[in-house]
Amino acid sequence: MSETPVRRSGRVTINDVAARAGVSRGAVSLAFNNRPGVSEATRERIMEAVTELGWVPSQTAIKLSGSATGAADTVGLVIARPARQLGLEPFYMEFISGAESVLEEHRCSLLLHLVRDVTQEIAVHREWWQSRRIAGSILVDIQQNDPRVTELAAIGLPAVAVGHPSLTGGFTSVWTDDEAAVHEAVRYLAALGHRRIARVGGHPSLGHTIIRTAALNSIVAELGLEPARSVTTDYSGEQGARATRSLLASPHRPTAIVYDNDIMAVAGLSVAAEMGLDVPRDVSLIAWDDSQLCQLTHPTLSAMSHDVFGFGADVTRRLFDVVHRRDLSSGPAAPPVLLPRGSSAPPRQPTD
Amino acid sequence: MSETPVRRSGRVTINDVAARAGVSRGAVSLAFNNRPGVSEATRERIMEAVTELGWVPSQTAIKLSGSATGAADTVGLVIARPARQLGLEPFYMEFISGAESVLEEHRCSLLLHLVRDVTQEIAVHREWWQSRRIAGSILVDIQQNDPRVTELAAIGLPAVAVGHPSLTGGFTSVWTDDEAAVHEAVRYLAALGHRRIARVGGHPSLGHTIIRTAALNSIVAELGLEPARSVTTDYSGEQGARATRSLLASPHRPTAIVYDNDIMAVAGLSVAAEMGLDVPRDVSLIAWDDSQLCQLTHPTLSAMSHDVFGFGADVTRRLFDVVHRRDLSSGPAAPPVLLPRGSSAPPRQPTD
Repeated sequence: MSETPVRRSGRVTINDVAARAGVSRGAVSLAFNNRPGVSEATRERIMEAVTELGWVPSQTAIKLSGSATGAADTVGLVIARPARQLGLEPFYMEFISGAESVLEEHRCSLLLHLVRDVTQEIAVHREWWQSRRIAGSILVDIQQNDPRVTELAAIGLPAVAVGHPSLTGGFTSVWTDDEAAVHEAVRYLAALGHRRIARVGGHPSLGHTIIRTAALNSIVAELGLEPARSVTTDYSGEQGARATRSLLASPHRPTAIVYDNDIMAVAGLSVAAEMGLDVPRDVSLIAWDDSQLCQLTHPTLSAMSHDVFGFGADVTRRLFDVVHRRDLSSGPAAPPVLLPRGSSAPPRQPTD
Repeated sequence: MSETPVRRSGRVTINDVAARAGVSRGAVSLAFNNRPGVSEATRERIMEAVTELGWVPSQTAIKLSGSATGAADTVGLVIARPARQLGLEPFYMEFISGAESVLEEHRCSLLLHLVRDVTQEIAVHREWWQSRRIAGSILVDIQQNDPRVTELAAIGLPAVAVGHPSLTGGFTSVWTDDEAAVHEAVRYLAALGHRRIARVGGHPSLGHTIIRTAALNSIVAELGLEPARSVTTDYSGEQGARATRSLLASPHRPTAIVYDNDIMAVAGLSVAAEMGLDVPRDVSLIAWDDSQLCQLTHPTLSAMSHDVFGFGADVTRRLFDVVHRRDLSSGPAAPPVLLPRGSSAPPRQPTD
């Protein structure tokens, strides 16, 4: 992890912070623990030194601090998506439920905050961590060149990042093997006889959207299929419906569509019915994430099935390892598995 | 609110607590603010006195307390449902998203905890409130004779209860007019010509399930329809499917089914297709809550539409009023509105 600016506990000591701020060790302790006895100006100077040096006090110091009530049994999660949109996406509630299943075992709680963008997210994490309200955080929706990777590492926040290690810097990360999953879905469709495959993807700035697009392009080239069209969306059913309508109305209609979540695939199924197209004979649909929605539609939706609940639990278990410095290693989550159901079949007639 | 054991700030003073515990006012302050200087045994005695008397320190005292970091800008929510089930229910994520939209305006966070039952929920709220980690809480899934109503009032927790005022004791409450909504749905179905109406309800212990069952029975009697069968479930799609299958396989098959949420109505739609029944000609379906799911199915689902996001926002706004003692009054949420869509129509032939 030498390529990151993370400084772990033990490298920087309270003496370094005191020296940088030009104060006594006692003053650092008072300021850090939010106790009276230092002026506001001094407090600010000390906290700047803490941030600059990435000082993390030992667990013993935390336990001894009277003001740390709560920090030891609280985990933070900040989500930078519009509040209204979040309620419509089964992924997050399942992820949070999985996280809660582990937190519950440890009698811990989740401190949840919705913000507008990553800049606000950084500010919230900084405040939570420096005011000792959380023991650590879960970072989600990792982007390319994500500013959280450097800025939150710099303040020494213990965290697990949900994203491919190529995107998460020195943070412990847990990721889904999106490339393998896209390859599996496309190989299966190609084996059924599909040659023109499209994709309704997620948000274009997210790391895993970019990985999935690249994986789709590489596998269709490798298998000699037609170039694949990917449309990006905000993950909402509404945009999923619009993207599906646009793909199915195009002169070179795809015979199969792969979706980046399941709510958009449900919307796609409805658009096909509205346009008088039979699923799977006229068009095959493959969903992603596989919440219970996929089994409630008619026909049922084939999906890249991903235990989102288990993923949330796994990430949270790793966060406890990171917080207690037992294990900082990254690892992939259980790989998504293709579950063919009623929405995928050979195309009605060969395409070319 | 004289019928409840709530003691609001101003009635009980720090002097009362000190007298009850046999200590000085200073010791009460140290213990309450989690500062060193009192023995653990004394602390416990003082906190018992705080609990017994329901002492709530003034906002000024809270602001002055160095250890209160976090309390002023954190709201608690404890949900007593199995973690895995929660992820599958769009209601909660929309409710939480609505709450977050208001918390975001106030730069506040939500402290979320999943527990197994109401007893655990009481313990979590007690700990959060007494360790000053939250400014107040939202109480959901109110049951008949709910123990939270007396026990959390006794510790002086500022809270808003989501439930009918007949169930929420002295707590400020926000509720949906479930009776009016059931009456509206049934009157509409009766006007279409339905005489045999069934319902797939929610959890039998919940207050609003009981209110909806009573409302259904009273309106079918009033309109001279056949007695209505209500089946209770855990709100999952799986149990919704099973209940629908059982109703549609019965010798006196209903011509219309009303569901207590939308995921069960989606499951019901799929069961009708699986059984070769046409929706709405053979059976009309009406969902509840009306998340975007209802517009993604084919046919689209008629629903008692309820702005769950707005409900979560409204409850949270009232909680801020309660915390700041601006307004303790209860009030109904915006009433659910019947939105007829593709899943309801006159029955194919008159039933009797």
